Amino acid sequence: MASRKSSQFLSSSAVKQTRDQLTLNKLEQLATSAYRTVLKGANPSIMIRQRTLSNVSFNEKRKIIELGKKSQSRDFFNTSMARKFMQTFLIASGCKTLIEEGKTISIRQMFYMMKHTLHNSNENTFEDQAESDPIIEDLEVCADALREELHLFANRRGLVVGKLVVRDAGDEIDLACMGRGGWGIPSICEDENLQFVKSDAQFILLVEKQAIFHRLNEDRFWQRHRCILMTSEGQAARGARRLLQRMDQELKLPIYVLVDNDPWGLYIYSVLKQGSINLAYESMRMAVPSIRFLGMSAFDYEKFNLTPAATIKLTKEDIARAQQIKAYPWFRDKKWQEEIDALLRHQFKMEVDALLTKSISFVTEEYIPKKLRDKDYLT
Amino acid sequence: MASRKSSQFLSSSAVKQTRDQLTLNKLEQLATSAYRTVLKGANPSIMIRQRTLSNVSFNEKRKIIELGKKSQSRDFFNTSMARKFMQTFLIASGCKTLIEEGKTISIRQMFYMMKHTLHNSNENTFEDQAESDPIIEDLEVCADALREELHLFANRRGLVVGKLVVRDAGDEIDLACMGRGGWGIPSICEDENLQFVKSDAQFILLVEKQAIFHRLNEDRFWQRHRCILMTSEGQAARGARRLLQRMDQELKLPIYVLVDNDPWGLYIYSVLKQGSINLAYESMRMAVPSIRFLGMSAFDYEKFNLTPAATIKLTKEDIARAQQIKAYPWFRDKKWQEEIDALLRHQFKMEVDALLTKSISFVTEEYIPKKLRDKDYLT
Repeated sequence: MASRKSSQFLSSSAVKQTRDQLTLNKLEQLATSAYRTVLKGANPSIMIRQRTLSNVSFNEKRKIIELGKKSQSRDFFNTSMARKFMQTFLIASGCKTLIEEGKTISIRQMFYMMKHTLHNSNENTFEDQAESDPIIEDLEVCADALREELHLFANRRGLVVGKLVVRDAGDEIDLACMGRGGWGIPSICEDENLQFVKSDAQFILLVEKQAIFHRLNEDRFWQRHRCILMTSEGQAARGARRLLQRMDQELKLPIYVLVDNDPWGLYIYSVLKQGSINLAYESMRMAVPSIRFLGMSAFDYEKFNLTPAATIKLTKEDIARAQQIKAYPWFRDKKWQEEIDALLRHQFKMEVDALLTKSISFVTEEYIPKKLRDKDYLT
Repeated sequence: MASRKSSQFLSSSAVKQTRDQLTLNKLEQLATSAYRTVLKGANPSIMIRQRTLSNVSFNEKRKIIELGKKSQSRDFFNTSMARKFMQTFLIASGCKTLIEEGKTISIRQMFYMMKHTLHNSNENTFEDQAESDPIIEDLEVCADALREELHLFANRRGLVVGKLVVRDAGDEIDLACMGRGGWGIPSICEDENLQFVKSDAQFILLVEKQAIFHRLNEDRFWQRHRCILMTSEGQAARGARRLLQRMDQELKLPIYVLVDNDPWGLYIYSVLKQGSINLAYESMRMAVPSIRFLGMSAFDYEKFNLTPAATIKLTKEDIARAQQIKAYPWFRDKKWQEEIDALLRHQFKMEVDALLTKSISFVTEEYIPKKLRDKDYLT
């Protein structure tokens, strides 16, 4: 059914849109304030919330990892800060151009867009991307705008198919008609570009592994079970996380997550659910506290009569990482402690792929349906 | 327009399809031959073409890298070969099941599917995937079947949008209606599953980088220039290569490739064009000798008035790799030698992203159109 409704991507009226206008205002405020200080002959500065571990905490009520209020001043007249001060305004001016032109670019492209040699010197505005990326994060915090709102994106990753029709950049796309390929989840999934048109799905299933997505898609799992099927293709990219949060808020469907039974799988789930320490200031817009951990659970080994062929010995790093995760406040619940203890006691991990030791479509026909039927998940 | 024509993926009649039947015959021949030898009381063996550098050559006429005819016998009654002999037939039997059930799995899943502990022993059929992957390649060679024909796939990667309508697994998909997301190129792009319905494209453009794909897609490049736009997202996966070869043969459109100006970009182009040494036996089905190298060329630096901000110093590894590539017989042509010499002389590389040092949409509005207009490409 996907018919083109408009051939325009971001229309020229994009800058008039509320969110873009809001972001522009924030950037202009930043500049105006610095400019006024200069006019007064004073030292211009910007306040930036500290993105350090000591300024991060778990909000027990909201169930997300949050950035605290501790802030630091970045001054122009300070030899250790002047360069970063200049860089912050350079990036801000680049973002202003992007918003005004209704275009989006990658954070690497932003590095190139703003990189040049200062007039009459050998000094580059940025030496490499390792210099511009943290400045982007600074700007997100001090302008209180996600990088997507600054029209910047990280690399995209992930696919989605199933019982959902979306409108994206003027195209109406039926995700039930994607063949075996799936729709590539865009880098930026804000509502200016991507809207949900209709859905008769009953739940959402996100799987970590691409090959499991393929297995479920080839078996038409989403059709039989009336659901939306996503793969994050490993750690979820920002686009996939925003999409999931928006589906949670707008479609109000239960969301199940299926990852490998290893510390990395637990971490993928954890970031989806309560956000990450590194990007704590974005949890509000990225984390989805309502998601449910469908598997794989360490207890699935006995529950599904798996054999040693399905297991891989834990490495030292796995054990250390599992112990670290066990100590996170958001895994304090008794059921989670038991889950992680079982992983450590087993001394082995299991990939979802290992369910193929049972049979090709065991994951589609028995494992997931039984888990859903028995409400056998953790939250 | 994408309307569902059939809700079935591989139908149960899949096994009756010609190609699947052909592959089944090949696998059965392999087994029958070994079985007959056993009945005679002799030592069963299989002949496998050697996948070594000394058995690989560049076919000047076909312009592809090919595997030679040197073969090696794999015997059952030979302590150093018995394990691999057993493994080859295990994988073959797994593939037979897949074809019969009309299902496809990843090579990692095949490892799990066939992994088990031999009865009354501690011996595993496979210890890890590093043991099963080469066996799959052996089977491809000795059964003369691509792994896709054996119903196996490597991880998928890559997106496509633009002036093409495809039918995939029963769905009709208009690639001009994909919003910003793009259609995920399936792992397996054989004609049983994927057919081209119609296209009014005038050429195909493949870009290495996802962010450049995004830039071109957001600027609706494929609409203004009536083309099909693909990204390989780095080194092209097998699905993307098969898709490109089939588009070449069936749509008969010129294909342009845009990669970074560095040895890695040249290598991506090279593999697309003439195949790779590692997978030489697949060139016939994967390589696309007609593709054209649109850029980035080392000469673009002067041609487009780029600045030092667009450059990155070559590393020692870059220089060594460039010299290696320069010595490949398929880069012997004078123009290619000049191209690689210019890269080495510059002592810098350039990413396509670096075109943003000019302006956000320079790549869309000036760089590519000028190159196409001037027929400024290498073959």
